[in-house]
Amino acid sequence: MNQIIKNCSIGKNTKIWDFVNLYDCEIGDECIIGTFVEIQKNVSIGDKVKISSHSFICEGVTLEDNVFIGHHVVFVNDKYPRSTNVKGELKQDGDWKLQKTIVKKNASIGSNATILGGMIIGENSLIGAGSVVTKNVAKNVVVAGNPAKIIKKLP
Amino acid sequence: MNQIIKNCSIGKNTKIWDFVNLYDCEIGDECIIGTFVEIQKNVSIGDKVKISSHSFICEGVTLEDNVFIGHHVVFVNDKYPRSTNVKGELKQDGDWKLQKTIVKKNASIGSNATILGGMIIGENSLIGAGSVVTKNVAKNVVVAGNPAKIIKKLP
Amino acid sequence: MNQIIKNCSIGKNTKIWDFVNLYDCEIGDECIIGTFVEIQKNVSIGDKVKISSHSFICEGVTLEDNVFIGHHVVFVNDKYPRSTNVKGELKQDGDWKLQKTIVKKNASIGSNATILGGMIIGENSLIGAGSVVTKNVAKNVVVAGNPAKIIKKLP
Repeated sequence: MNQIIKNCSIGKNTKIWDFVNLYDCEIGDECIIGTFVEIQKNVSIGDKVKISSHSFICEGVTLEDNVFIGHHVVFVNDKYPRSTNVKGELKQDGDWKLQKTIVKKNASIGSNATILGGMIIGENSLIGAGSVVTKNVAKNVVVAGNPAKIIKKLP
Repeated sequence: MNQIIKNCSIGKNTKIWDFVNLYDCEIGDECIIGTFVEIQKNVSIGDKVKISSHSFICEGVTLEDNVFIGHHVVFVNDKYPRSTNVKGELKQDGDWKLQKTIVKKNASIGSNATILGGMIIGENSLIGAGSVVTKNVAKNVVVAGNPAKIIKKLP
Repeated sequence: MNQIIKNCSIGKNTKIWDFVNLYDCEIGDECIIGTFVEIQKNVSIGDKVKISSHSFICEGVTLEDNVFIGHHVVFVNDKYPRSTNVKGELKQDGDWKLQKTIVKKNASIGSNATILGGMIIGENSLIGAGSVVTKNVAKNVVVAGNPAKIIKKLP
């Protein structure tokens, strides 16, 4: 079986490519989901969103309408990730604090960008390829670098 | 089915591993293509090229003979990626401008490097792991960082 | 077939997700191995290690007990990677020098981090998401950036 799709709500005319792992998420209409993409539970994706190959959308991420996600994009939702809890057991759902991120409509995330947890990416903004986003991004700007900084304002 | 290979020209003695997505591309002789690799249409790959696992080779990229591509390498071909065009429809082929990139013979791209669109990577040069390449790279140099800068000249 | 697992030693209660490529490696008890993960030969992984989706663990890496590996993490083991040797033939095992890396117990590697070859990552330390680690990391510190530098000491 080429696709793992479990308990997802998927809109009309949405195209999903091979070798994906999607579970417990909502995806809107007319979206494109590339190969080797994983989308976790409690992710909400609007209409006409494109998620390119190899990207990882973690729990707690919302992508509004028309958002573009490049290739190899990685979202983060845990500020202090650990394998085990203070008792030395594998961490469970109650052992960590979820950081939610929202990408506003028409924004684009360039390939291989890393988006730390708890971010707001403003409407129509563009994150340069390879950037590491450590702070909220205003609307209508281009940011790039590690850490990402504004390099241009868009009209 | 473990491999998606559609309408590709593949040379003699080229080895392709599992979970790949290759379409409408040309691959030379004695190449090695790792797992979780995607190669898009209109990509041209010479002989004895090694592409390591998880890498993404986008439309418009040429890899000359003996090129080494590390793991998780990402090429880019669109300076202003967007999901939709000005009419609010999903972008089609005519709605964006392809930036072509060429990696000259014997060059090596380190793992997790990001290569922006429109680049020329010079013969025998080496891109350090994790670099973001934003300018052309001369021949016989080592570059590293974000953005990538020359850190050494090779004999 | 969704999983490629060849000649691996896998401990008790270890969970392995879909679309993985694991070969000739040792994995301890109670580990979690995510989707799209590749683990190469001669990798040694302790107990209660979590390796998240899309990560690549190369030959020569040791992960001690309770280590956390985020998503899209990439290890490196070759300082001067090339596709071919001086005779112009595809490189074989004897044509390059393996750099070994060890991640000490309870350490965490953030998503999309790149770990150069030959590194020692100290006990309980945390590598920030998107970092490029070019030097050994002491124990009980947080490092981030490209190249990664200490940004905090942990109690």
